[in-house]
Formats: sequence, structure tokens, C-alpha cells
Amino acid sequence: MVDHVPLGPPDASLNPRYAGFATFARLPRLDEVSRADIAFVGVPFDSGVSFRPGARFGPSHIRESSRLLRPYNPAQDVSPFAGQQVVDAGDVIANPFNILEAVDQIEHAALALTEQGTRLITLGGDHTIALPLLRAAAQRAQQPVAVLHFDAHLDTWDTYFGAPITHGTPFRRASEEGLIDLTASTHVGTRGPLYTTEDLRDDERLGFAIISSVEIQDEGLPSAIRRMLTRLGDRPVYLSVDVDVMDPAHAPGTGTPEAGGMTSRELLSMIRALRAVNLVGADIVEVAPAYDHAQITGIAAAHVGYEILSAMTPKPE
Amino acid sequence: MVDHVPLGPPDASLNPRYAGFATFARLPRLDEVSRADIAFVGVPFDSGVSFRPGARFGPSHIRESSRLLRPYNPAQDVSPFAGQQVVDAGDVIANPFNILEAVDQIEHAALALTEQGTRLITLGGDHTIALPLLRAAAQRAQQPVAVLHFDAHLDTWDTYFGAPITHGTPFRRASEEGLIDLTASTHVGTRGPLYTTEDLRDDERLGFAIISSVEIQDEGLPSAIRRMLTRLGDRPVYLSVDVDVMDPAHAPGTGTPEAGGMTSRELLSMIRALRAVNLVGADIVEVAPAYDHAQITGIAAAHVGYEILSAMTPKPE
Amino acid sequence: MVDHVPLGPPDASLNPRYAGFATFARLPRLDEVSRADIAFVGVPFDSGVSFRPGARFGPSHIRESSRLLRPYNPAQDVSPFAGQQVVDAGDVIANPFNILEAVDQIEHAALALTEQGTRLITLGGDHTIALPLLRAAAQRAQQPVAVLHFDAHLDTWDTYFGAPITHGTPFRRASEEGLIDLTASTHVGTRGPLYTTEDLRDDERLGFAIISSVEIQDEGLPSAIRRMLTRLGDRPVYLSVDVDVMDPAHAPGTGTPEAGGMTSRELLSMIRALRAVNLVGADIVEVAPAYDHAQITGIAAAHVGYEILSAMTPKPE
Amino acid sequence: MVDHVPLGPPDASLNPRYAGFATFARLPRLDEVSRADIAFVGVPFDSGVSFRPGARFGPSHIRESSRLLRPYNPAQDVSPFAGQQVVDAGDVIANPFNILEAVDQIEHAALALTEQGTRLITLGGDHTIALPLLRAAAQRAQQPVAVLHFDAHLDTWDTYFGAPITHGTPFRRASEEGLIDLTASTHVGTRGPLYTTEDLRDDERLGFAIISSVEIQDEGLPSAIRRMLTRLGDRPVYLSVDVDVMDPAHAPGTGTPEAGGMTSRELLSMIRALRAVNLVGADIVEVAPAYDHAQITGIAAAHVGYEILSAMTPKPE
Amino acid sequence: MVDHVPLGPPDASLNPRYAGFATFARLPRLDEVSRADIAFVGVPFDSGVSFRPGARFGPSHIRESSRLLRPYNPAQDVSPFAGQQVVDAGDVIANPFNILEAVDQIEHAALALTEQGTRLITLGGDHTIALPLLRAAAQRAQQPVAVLHFDAHLDTWDTYFGAPITHGTPFRRASEEGLIDLTASTHVGTRGPLYTTEDLRDDERLGFAIISSVEIQDEGLPSAIRRMLTRLGDRPVYLSVDVDVMDPAHAPGTGTPEAGGMTSRELLSMIRALRAVNLVGADIVEVAPAYDHAQITGIAAAHVGYEILSAMTPKPE
Amino acid sequence: MVDHVPLGPPDASLNPRYAGFATFARLPRLDEVSRADIAFVGVPFDSGVSFRPGARFGPSHIRESSRLLRPYNPAQDVSPFAGQQVVDAGDVIANPFNILEAVDQIEHAALALTEQGTRLITLGGDHTIALPLLRAAAQRAQQPVAVLHFDAHLDTWDTYFGAPITHGTPFRRASEEGLIDLTASTHVGTRGPLYTTEDLRDDERLGFAIISSVEIQDEGLPSAIRRMLTRLGDRPVYLSVDVDVMDPAHAPGTGTPEAGGMTSRELLSMIRALRAVNLVGADIVEVAPAYDHAQITGIAAAHVGYEILSAMTPKPE
Repeated sequence: MVDHVPLGPPDASLNPRYAGFATFARLPRLDEVSRADIAFVGVPFDSGVSFRPGARFGPSHIRESSRLLRPYNPAQDVSPFAGQQVVDAGDVIANPFNILEAVDQIEHAALALTEQGTRLITLGGDHTIALPLLRAAAQRAQQPVAVLHFDAHLDTWDTYFGAPITHGTPFRRASEEGLIDLTASTHVGTRGPLYTTEDLRDDERLGFAIISSVEIQDEGLPSAIRRMLTRLGDRPVYLSVDVDVMDPAHAPGTGTPEAGGMTSRELLSMIRALRAVNLVGADIVEVAPAYDHAQITGIAAAHVGYEILSAMTPKPE
Repeated sequence: MVDHVPLGPPDASLNPRYAGFATFARLPRLDEVSRADIAFVGVPFDSGVSFRPGARFGPSHIRESSRLLRPYNPAQDVSPFAGQQVVDAGDVIANPFNILEAVDQIEHAALALTEQGTRLITLGGDHTIALPLLRAAAQRAQQPVAVLHFDAHLDTWDTYFGAPITHGTPFRRASEEGLIDLTASTHVGTRGPLYTTEDLRDDERLGFAIISSVEIQDEGLPSAIRRMLTRLGDRPVYLSVDVDVMDPAHAPGTGTPEAGGMTSRELLSMIRALRAVNLVGADIVEVAPAYDHAQITGIAAAHVGYEILSAMTPKPE
Repeated sequence: MVDHVPLGPPDASLNPRYAGFATFARLPRLDEVSRADIAFVGVPFDSGVSFRPGARFGPSHIRESSRLLRPYNPAQDVSPFAGQQVVDAGDVIANPFNILEAVDQIEHAALALTEQGTRLITLGGDHTIALPLLRAAAQRAQQPVAVLHFDAHLDTWDTYFGAPITHGTPFRRASEEGLIDLTASTHVGTRGPLYTTEDLRDDERLGFAIISSVEIQDEGLPSAIRRMLTRLGDRPVYLSVDVDVMDPAHAPGTGTPEAGGMTSRELLSMIRALRAVNLVGADIVEVAPAYDHAQITGIAAAHVGYEILSAMTPKPE
Repeated sequence: MVDHVPLGPPDASLNPRYAGFATFARLPRLDEVSRADIAFVGVPFDSGVSFRPGARFGPSHIRESSRLLRPYNPAQDVSPFAGQQVVDAGDVIANPFNILEAVDQIEHAALALTEQGTRLITLGGDHTIALPLLRAAAQRAQQPVAVLHFDAHLDTWDTYFGAPITHGTPFRRASEEGLIDLTASTHVGTRGPLYTTEDLRDDERLGFAIISSVEIQDEGLPSAIRRMLTRLGDRPVYLSVDVDVMDPAHAPGTGTPEAGGMTSRELLSMIRALRAVNLVGADIVEVAPAYDHAQITGIAAAHVGYEILSAMTPKPE
Repeated sequence: MVDHVPLGPPDASLNPRYAGFATFARLPRLDEVSRADIAFVGVPFDSGVSFRPGARFGPSHIRESSRLLRPYNPAQDVSPFAGQQVVDAGDVIANPFNILEAVDQIEHAALALTEQGTRLITLGGDHTIALPLLRAAAQRAQQPVAVLHFDAHLDTWDTYFGAPITHGTPFRRASEEGLIDLTASTHVGTRGPLYTTEDLRDDERLGFAIISSVEIQDEGLPSAIRRMLTRLGDRPVYLSVDVDVMDPAHAPGTGTPEAGGMTSRELLSMIRALRAVNLVGADIVEVAPAYDHAQITGIAAAHVGYEILSAMTPKPE
Repeated sequence: MVDHVPLGPPDASLNPRYAGFATFARLPRLDEVSRADIAFVGVPFDSGVSFRPGARFGPSHIRESSRLLRPYNPAQDVSPFAGQQVVDAGDVIANPFNILEAVDQIEHAALALTEQGTRLITLGGDHTIALPLLRAAAQRAQQPVAVLHFDAHLDTWDTYFGAPITHGTPFRRASEEGLIDLTASTHVGTRGPLYTTEDLRDDERLGFAIISSVEIQDEGLPSAIRRMLTRLGDRPVYLSVDVDVMDPAHAPGTGTPEAGGMTSRELLSMIRALRAVNLVGADIVEVAPAYDHAQITGIAAAHVGYEILSAMTPKPE
């Protein structure tokens, strides 16, 4: 916690929101402060995608789409920029032509940024980046972390075209590497067809429970939230939000859209419930701006980031 | 009530809906009839916006998007063009370079149009226009009116860049001017971050209760509708619908979109419930066509206008 | 049922989903197999529309939008490509300048394709095509069929501009021709204005019950599904899905959009419930790609097709 | 020529260009004046297209795209609204389900509108409408007219799917009917593949010379203009402009686009040269708004209409 | 001229162009260097527009669109980042609700930024901003400057709605204030209709010659360039580029588009010719991103900025 | 040359162009004929891009955009489908996660397809694919080939992020491997900034001459064509067309757009001039559909393919 007034966004009643270099929520850059409690950081990398590419432009798109965010969050009754220093740490450099090198670059960048206890909210990029981010998170937590994974897909597949590390495989690799708490990890919002029934058995063995998009509709949001919180318990939680967890109506700008998804309102409600949870890090991935319209995907992602930040914010005493 | 058969839209089985000059719902122009019971009127003005401009093109966009509306509304069991004369009164001229003059022009135009008892459904334009429209409505009602305000935002902020009259401030100014019934006014659908906790205290002091977007999701639509109707009672009600009350999925074409909004179906249901209410006037604002896609925002706005009209229509005896 | 391993889509872990000629779900073409149990077939015809044309490009758009579909459907616990031969039969030729000839061409093509017992899932095209498809379905079923009709509109109007066969009239004509089971047919998802109260009376007389979009919201999906299944009973059912049954947020790419529609998740849930029903044929119509964005309408239509196929798939014993 | 001051568009320094019902160039409607010298009229009809439909929305799109036109044309040194009465006559009703009936409706409407000597500039609609417009023009001229035809295509094909009257055949039918001056008619801007070499022979026999898009590039605009004017001579000329004569870069919003087209600047220059010609009527067709972007096709069409009007305007004495 | 190696953009073979906060051409920010020879600066202001607003988002859009610019310009044989310090100075704050205050803010910001001899290339914003920028430029030059003005329009009109300072009037006001060299100023690329013949007479009296878009086509680029350079001579020149000087095909993303414009290739060629000229400052205005597609307007504007910068760069000795 | 009537596209006056599975120009598939003289083949691969990805969807997009192509090409007076068998050979499988493996897959596929003397016109995909295609072409030609390269960029850079084979390096690698005739290869249409002056020296050393976009404008198309043909002589020529050689107005749907490019008309004219040249193979690359609008890039690419095919077609004796 900072012992001086943290630097926040400029006053929007004097500085137009559309003015100035785009940082997340118009926050200060990391180099403008001495230390950060929480940092947004971009990972413009999409060489792990199997269908529509373009998430390499995700970080800049989410930043441009976050200019309307304001300092007080009534839904969580918290002012997330006020009692702690929040920054935008810019973008991690990741080699677009070499997945393994990129994954290393991301892991090292994440470790460097968290050295002083800063927590990260990462803006992707495709879902491949969750693997190096989980490696760093587990190392910082000094234990496997519970993965809370919002996504239309399981992302626990094995290989594509022989490649072990792609956007469809991060959680299988992470589970195999012992980074994941096998008793607490959860997918939320999954739907759509799979390859075989095997997929579900593998997934369970790798440590995941499922709260599907249809279950949220059928059992209701309060019940789904209770199931989610019960499963997570008080473990350290790494949150990974693939924007395709939302219906394409709410998030057209993504790489592997599936009909039948969650509304943005449901997603934000579930994230707000994480106020009660020990969040050690988070990512928001698969924003592909070339397929977005009027920034609706970018704005949803920006709100997700803001609610994650708020959930990470300590309650004022 | 007219004592002859009112002039309605041309028969769509003989006149293609895509043919003819665009008026709202293909209704006659004001100059084609001797007198109107209800008039749609455009206010193409957006110089009060703080973020994305473009609502100056709202009226023509909503008109083009309303060509599919038909004469009988089964949801309210009413034929709103049948027992009364409904028209499109064209656009009010408002100076784009002088907010104060524009606000005066709008107030005078609204007073002129309502002189013979015509009720107005105004197509904006940005939310600035609600202030002069409320001035005219309160003058015609000869009392403060209950404001029913659908919006993602409170719009009771004080000033931007020193300007007292903008699209973020109409209801504060209206409350200060005594135009609003402080015991009955209500925001519906609000969400997203604010500036400070002060915003909520100010808002309550200015006369507003809140039914938020999340509450509609969590408590259910019937309960939200009951709360709304109880709050409004039998007062004269001025209805102001900012299309950003809908989720950006349903209304991308707007100036300050926020994720987590209402569906168009919820919004239309709440408006239909106003059949029981004494509606003295209404506006539909913040349609910014440059950000719309396939007219989905325009179509939603057109349906909102049609349901408001139906709710204003007297029940056949 | 095939007595050898059916030919399915190529393995997506070796063949990129974006590669290869577009067939529905990357299925084999009809000419690649000896016989098909179920065939997707396109009818690129839109000369029956009264508002926005463009559905003639629907079949190719849905095919391109279906590349992500995978072989196992966990929501119905079925692998629809595994125990039966499913194909893409290409497009029917229909004269764009002569509705009556086109309708004949479609009927004959449907009869030819179903000669060996193949069931069809037709990709439109505008809703005009439901009439010849129903003629073929009733002839194959040797009895009137129950029509289950998802749509914003009734499509039981009489004539437009004197034309008896258009996209607004197929179910009136079908009812008049005795193709429809008058005790079981149902519209689901209707909403929006009509011409007169007569429309509803006619519609009932022509054999239809209604489960409206608002009723699904208000009574809840389980109740709506129960009503639908009760109405259908064990009759042979022809399913016709106009994508405008979904809200324009979920299906902007269509010809006569109406606000206040169903979500794609609700629609898919209702179609999954048809697993219990005797589906003899189906169509998915009114996808107008020029108004689509990022294929969201196409993707929703593709998922509808996939769930219909799954519902038609016999349960493994 | 009017003997009083003609009614023109409202003063744009007091009436915002984006305000008011959309008429072409914000001109008065026909019903606002006693008589018109020149009338813009819409024909929203596109049932004759063989590829992308949507030109039925052309008239309203061109009107919305014409709001920026101002009263003085320096390129022709003329004020076309000043010395004559110019109006927007609204839209002709044409049956979308019956080409033959539609063609009759259009011919009769054109004859009715030109009864008092009014000349028409018609906003299409697809190119089918040129046939009835030529019938009316030839009847009014009491002789065959020279057709000056800007288009990527010849539009002298014979039949499609057995239909003699479509958007690919108007000039063959017109030639067969004796409406066209066989010694003076000319295509400008043609390019792209044909069916057979026969097409060119037929076309010549039907009365047309060709100035192709590549010839304009290679021989230069002045030479092409000279050839055009020499060919036309002092005959009565009917001008038909298919916007696909422009490159898709300049006119994406059209039905059968071909690469390699003219620039809008070249097209406008050629039309200005018609000041020297006896123009008896004109049309601007094949604007398909669903494929337009930022109104660039609509704006080009509006400028084409404005230059035609200016070329028709008598020189002040 | 700097006496050390200037700070340039990061090496694109190690830092992906799509990574990092968006500055113009990925240049350093002003606060990262001690002093700048040339600064790009944004003025996000569009409250002076009479038609389509949205140029307030111009600066951030041009920055995002400039990521591909590389350090060596073969067309001018110069490395503009190498021998001088070039920076991005961020955005000037301008009150969106008060044109007069905004104009003052812009003038003061321009004077402050140029205090140490820095030359500015300003990214608008609408054309209103040329007035305060010219005030600052003339004050720094200590004499009237020759205005070289690329635009479809004259922008020497008098008032709109009584407002003397709007995007249609900057050069009339500047001329009246004595900021402009009346013997050398020039419009290039004008076209389209005006209000009256008076407009041209006024314009000439205010000090401008015209090289129209059609003249460039008809006399050829070399002749037009010669005329431009002869007119400018060796005076201090302020260059103002409204992107609507390009045809809407090349620059759809602008506020008052007119057909018949220049190609981007012609525009860049003319700007390159300014290498021989004494450029004291420049602006690029009227980029309205909401109407752009695939950044084509933004990319053209970025190239214009790069060529201006190159033309300002001293030749290596 | 075939000794029977080649199979061509279906008759468009009976089979709507929008119907049927999309093959290039509605040509037969390779598996429908016994042998092909010329084959279009797709290579959906874009893992070599340094900026905007998405060209993996290029082949299907070009196919959909080629439905309007007709059998007779008047500009070259040839019917390219008539005297030889032309087919669409479908897509080559290329690993998206391993550039080296992909390059091998493409080379082997090209060799396999050309084994019987078939010439290839390849639809990319990003420019990386030119390397393996050149390897196959040189092997088939049994000598180095003259590369005729239309592109905004040189594509003779060395490495990005250490990777030797990307879309910016194919012609350096090809030159180093001895695949290129160093006395005849040529870039056409280059423009925009480079890294250093070294780039030009390297490029010349690697065997390339340059005809820049500005030179085409300044010296005129006939002179540029003469230079091109003189340089090529009678050598075997491999033609590689990056669609970004066109201005973004004509080809927005591409990965690294640069302002100031060629028109589609100029490009098609230059390709037609290759009728006199010995074309051994060709590619059309860098079509990125997510950035296209109304298929204008796809249509331009389709016409380029059609003119290449026509230029390859032997003159009838």
C-alpha cells in the first residue's frame, strides 16, 4: 500500500477523455511512479491461434476502449485508484515467429514486473500467454494456484499440428507442470462442440470442474456464483478471462466465437463476486480488434479489467 | 382525439416500406394534417457530448430504421395510429455552435409544438436536450414532473470544463430549476463507474431513486417494474430514454457505451408497463449512427418510440 | 444408418479449419459418398423478400461461418457425424426472376434429395422456400406435419402486391394446401407490431399457437419448452428457423429485424429440447450476410444447424 | 423557366445540413411547388439483379448522401437551383414481385411526371429501370434517343433464366423496341470479362460504340470526351449512369463490381462535358447501400446527380 | 540541430510495430528528450464542425495508423529521425464546449511548444484549429505567412449560425487578422459546389489562388507543382492539409467528403515538392475515425505527416 | 493442351453466380478432371507476417470474390477457359505453428501439383509463401527465374526477430539460394519508407531493379510497361503480386498498407502486358479479409488472377 496519494488518471472534467496517449483507464505509466501495487500490462502476441488471428492488436484496442472508465466503482463500493498505486506497464515484447521464445519472454517479463509484489492484470494477446503467466504466478505464490477460467472452450487440448504450446493447450501444459491446484480449478461459461467425449474426461483429470454457459442460464447466476466460490475456497486464484466466454453479440471481436454465450452483465457479476477471493493475478485474452465493432468487445474487456482491479482492491478499513 | 379517421402510414402491401421520404414509422408529416395528438419530433443536436459525438444524425437514422413498424401492437393490444392523429413534425433547428442558444431554441420549439395539447416524443440528439424539453414539459404540466430516466449514467453531474449545460448534467439543472418531482423521479438501468461516492449522494438529494441494470438481472423484471410503478404513482411523468441503457450488444451506436446493460427485450417490457402511467412527454436520445451496425441501435430506438406511443395511446372504450 | 464408418470432416489438428472449400461444418459433399442419412442443402433464393434482400448469399455465408464446428456435442451428448452419414449437398438452383418457377425447382430438388430417405436441413434463402420444402416434407411424411416455427413474425399473411407466395406468406399457403397439422403447429419467439388484430385470429385459424419472445422471458425457458413439447407431441415435425427470431444483437444479418428478440443461448436450448421429437426436416432462413458483422449471424445459424442435426441423430444404443 | 424566384434548399448557415427530412440536395418536394422544370425521382426497385441485391435502398441512401450539396457549381459556373424550379418528386411505386408490372408502373409514372415538360433525373434502383425510363423518354422526344451509358458492363445481354427484362438486358430490349438512336449511342467505362466475343458483335449491332475504362486511361480524358461528344452530336440524349462504372474503390456500394474502373473525378469531368449536349433525361442506378461505406458511393452518386442537373441547366443569358 | 544522436523509434526487428503505447511513428514522447527540433502534437477538438463530427478522435487514430512508418524515406532520400530530434508532444487540451476558449488554449499551447524553436506538425481535430495555429506561426515568424492549403473546400466562409470561428472560416479570420501573406497563399485540390459566385471573389480578395482538383487532373501534376512553388516562392509557409482534399475513396474517414478528389499518390507527390520550401509549421486535419475503414484515412494522414517531416528535414551536408 | 472440350464454369444464365461451392471463378475442382493445364491453388498461411495477420483467410475470400468472372476476356481477346483445362486445386495444408515445416509443405505441394506440367496461380496467404513457390518454380524451370514482383515493399530484408523466413524476406532468401535471375528481376509499385539506404543497395545486389509507384505516375504507364518488358526479356518469369501494391483505397484488406499506391486499373494493365512474356508461375498474396470492405480487395485480387490466367493462355492459332 502506498504511503502517499497515488497517482491516478487526469481529471476528466478538465482533460477530455479522448485526449492523451492511451493507457489503460488513462492511468499513469509505470515509469511515472516509483512502485506499483497493481499493473496492467499488455502482451501483444497471437502466434498461437488456430483460427482467426489478430489478438496482437488487443492491448492497444483495450486501452483505447478504456478511456471512459471512472474512479469510483459503485457496484463494489470501492475507488480502485485511490488507496493503491495502479499503473499501465506497457507491453511485453514477444517474438511473433517463435512460440517457445515468446513464452519465455513473457514469463521473464512477468517475473520481473512482480518482483516487488506488484500484481498483474494482463491484456492479451491470445490464450497461449496464460501458460507463462501461470508459471510466473505459481512461482510467486510458491504453490500451485487455482485457475478460474472464463471461456467458451476448455483450452486443455493436447497438440495442434504437433505444437504443444498454442492457444488451445495452456491449461493442459500448466496442469502437467504442476502449476494448477487440481482440486479448485474451474471453467466458467464453456459451451459448443468438442472433439470427443475424451475431452471432458481429460479435462477433469487435469483438475477442472465446469460451470457451463447453459447452466448459468438454467440454474441462475446466484447458484452458479455460489458453486464457483465454493470450488475456489481460500486458495490463491489466478483468473483467466477469454472474451469469447461472452456471446458473439457481446464480444464479436475475438478469434473463435461460439453462439450461446454469457451476457456481459452476467460476466461482470461473476467477476465482482471475486471480491471475496484471493486473486494473485489475472489475464483478459483473445480480443481481436479487426473483428470488433464500435469497440463493444474492447469496452467489455475494459470493464472486465476494471472489475478485476476492483476485486483485487483491499477494502478500506 | 380526432373526430375523423386519422391519417396513418401508407398501406405496406401496396407501398414498399423502403419507398418514400423517411418519416417516423412512415407517418404523415405535421403539415399534412390539421392537428396532432402525438408528434414525433427530431432534435439533431450533439454539441453537449463529452465523448463520441454524432447524435446529430440520430433523428434521420431512427426514421430510416423505423420503416418496418406496423399499425397494430399486440404486446399492448392497441393500434396507436388508429384512434388519434400521430405525426412526424420534422426537426427542430438548434445552433451547433452555441449550447445556450440551442437550448432556448429547443424549449421554444417544444412549447410551440405543444400549444394545442400535442404530446411530444422527441428523437435526439444528445442528452443535453432533455433540459429544455423538461422546461417545456413542466410548463405545460404546470407542475414539476416525475422524471423516469433510462440510462447507463446518472446525468446529474455538475459541470464539464466549466459548462453547466451538457449531456452529463441535464437532470441536475432540471432539479435545481424545480422542474422535477423530487419524490418520484427514478433512474433505470444505471451501471458502470462514477467519479466519487458523492455522485450517489448528490443524485439522491436531487430527487432520484435508482433501479440499476444489475438489480433488474438479480431481482427480476417483474419486481423492478413494480418498484418503478410504485415510485411513479399517478404523477405526470416525463420519460427520457438514453439508448446506452441497453448493453452495447444491443445499442452499439451511442456515445458513451458501458458494458453490462439491459437487453432490448427488458427495456421494451419496462416501457410497456407505462401504459398505466400518465406520460406527458418523452425523449429517446444518444443514437450515434456512425457507430451503429445494420441499424440495430436505430431499430431498438424505433421500437422504444413505438412502445412509448402505444403506452400514451388511450384505451379504446 | 450406415454399415461402415461414415465420412466426416477432416481432422482439425492436421487440417486448418480455415483451409479447404467451404462445406457445412467441413463435411463431405454429397458426391463423395454413396448415400446420406442427413444432408445440409443450400437454397440461395431471396426474391420473395419485402424489405432487405440479400439472403441469396446466406448458404455460402453459413458454410464459411461453420468452420469451427467440432464432432462431439456435449450439450446433447452425441457425436452427430459418427453413426450416420452427414453431407453437404450443395445448392439448389432457383430462378431469381420467377417465384413460381423457383418454388417448383425447390420442391423438386427436395423430393429428389429425399428419395432414399435422406432428411434435409436446408440453409436459406428467404422464408419463401419453406413452402416448397413443406410440400416435399408432407409428401414424404404422407401426412400433414406439425410446423415448429421460430421467427419474430407470423409469416401467415395473405398477399403482398398481389403476390401469393412471398417470404411473409408461406405458412398461410401451406395451411391452405393441407400441409400443416392444425393441432400442433407453433410459432416461437414472435414479437413486434402486426397489421391488425385480424392477423392473430387468422393465424390461429390457420393452425398455429404462439409462444412469444416476451413469454419466454416472463415465464422462463423451462416452461416455454414444456409448452412447445406438449403442443408438438409425437407428430412428425418440420422445423423452420428464421434467424430474426433472435434479437438483432445476436443476428444483425437478416432482412426484417425486430428489437426484443431471443438470445442465441435461449434458441439453442429450445432446439436441443427437440431431441425428444420426431424431426422430419428443417430449414434455417433469412441470413442476409451484407448486414452481418464478424459472422455473428452466420455463426449462430451454424450452431442452430448443428443442434438440429444433433437432435435428429439417433441415440447410440 | 419559372417567372418567379424558384424555391431552393434552406439556407445552410441557419438550417443544419443534417436536419430535416432527406430530399435530394435538401430541395423542396414536388408537392411544395406548382410546377417543376427538373425533378429528381426515386425508383426503389431491384428485382432485376443477377448478383448482389439491395439497390431498392438506393434512393433514400443517395438522398441522405446529398445533404452537403451547395447552390453554386463553380466547375460549370452555374447555380442550378436559381433560374429554374428543381424538386424531389419522391419515389415511384414498383411491385417487387413482378418485373413486368413494375416496368409498367415505372413507365407510367415517368410519363405522368413529364407531362408538363419536366425533365427527370432518376435515382435507382437497379438498371432494369432504364427500359421503362427510355420508353417514356423516347415517347416524350417523339424519336429514338441517343443513349449515353456509363457502366462497367454492356447491359445488352439477352435473357437470364429465361427472363427478358432484367438489369443486364435493358439496352437490348430498348434497341429492339426502336427507342435508341443506333448511330449515336455509346457505352463509357466498360471493362471486365464478357461471355463470348458474340457479346461485342451483338452490342455493336444494337447501336452502341464503346469508350472503355482502359481507353480513358490510355488515350487521356480530353480525347475520350471528344469522342463521346462527336458520337452524340446534337441528338436528344438519354444519360444512364451505373455507379459501377467507377472503380470499387470509389463505389463499393453496388451490385456487380469490377476492378479497374474510372475514378470519380474522371466520371464527373465527363458528365460536365455534357453541358454542350441536349439531355432529355437521366438516371443514376445500382447504388446498393448495404455494401457502401461512409456513404462514399452515395456521395459520388449525389455529385453525379448534381453535375447532370448543372449540365441540364440553361446558361444564363 | 542536436549535437548527440537523436532518440528515434525502437528497432522494429526486435520490437513489434504493434507493441507499445501509440506515439506518432513510434517516436519518443517530448518528456523523454531534453529538446525537440520538430514535434508532432495532437489537438483533439471538433466542436467547430458543421456536418459529421468525430475529428476529436483524429490524433489517437493517426498515431495508431502510423506504426508502420520506417526511418528512411527514399522518395526524398532523407532519414528524418536521424539528424534532428523528432518527438510526439502528446495532445493539447481544448475545451469542447467553448470554441473561443479552445482557440485560446490551442494558441497558447502552440506558442509554448515553439518557444525554443521547435517546429510543429499538428494532428487535428477539425479545421478550426488552423486559426490559433496560424496566430502562433505568424507570431513566431514575425510576419504574415504564406498559407498552402490542401482541401476540397475554401474554408474562407464568413459565419455559420452567427459563429465567426468554425471549421469553415479559419482562413477568412486569419486573413482579416493579417496573419496571411496575401500574395502567396494557395488552395490546392478544391472542388465541389459553393454557395455563390461571391465565394470565389471573397476568397481571392482574402489572398488565395486556387489549383483545383480538376486542374491537377487536366494540366498534370508537374505543371500544378510548378504553379504551387512559383506562388509560394521563398516565403515562410504554413501548410494545412485537410484530408478531404483526397477523394473519399482514399479518405472516407472525414467530416465533409466530396467526390472527385485527389489520389493519395498525387497528394504525397505535391508535399514532397515542398522540400524546396521554407516550412514553418503544418497541420493535418479532419480525420474522423468513426467513418474510416481499415485505417486507410489514418494511414494516408500518417504518410502525409511523414512526408511533411521529411520536407522539413535539412539536407545532410 | 487438352484434346477434348475442357470443363469450364457452369452457365451463369442458368446457374446463379451466388450458388454453389466457391471455387475460383466457379471453375471445376482438380478432382473433377483428369489433368489440368493451369491450376489455381490456395495457400492459407499467414504465420510469417510482421504486422496485421489474417491472410490465412485469403484463399476462401478471393474465391468468394471471383464469382462474377466471365469466360471471355475482351481486354486480351482470349477465352481462357476454352482451349485449356483450368481448375481450382483447393488448398495446400501448411502448419501455422512452424514456419519451416510450412515452407516445406508448400514446396512439396507445389512440386506435386506441377509434376505433369500444370502451371500454378497461387492464392495466398502471406508473402512468405513466395519462397517455397520459387523453389518449386526454379526446379521445374531447371534454371533461375526472373521474378516480377508487384508490391509496396521490397521484401528483401534479412531477418525479423532472428527469423530468416518471413513475409519480409522471401526474395533475399531466394536470391541467396540462386533461384532468381539477377539480371532480370524487378519490383513494381514500391513506395513508402525503408529502414536505411542500405536496403536499396542490398536489393540491387540481390538482383532487382525498381519501377516505383511514383514513377508509374510520373513517366506514364506505357513507359513503365516498356521498361518492365525490356527488363524481363524472354526469360522464364515468376510473377508475384502483393495486393498492397495497390493503394489502400483499392486494396484495404491487406496486412501492411502504404498510401500512394497504384490503381487497380494500372495494375491490371501492367499484367495484361505480360501476354508477351513466358510466365511459369504466379502468386497473389497478402489479402487479409478481416480488413476488406465489400470484397473490393478480393475482387481486385480475383481480376488479377483472371488477367494472369489470360496472359498465360496460348493465343489461338
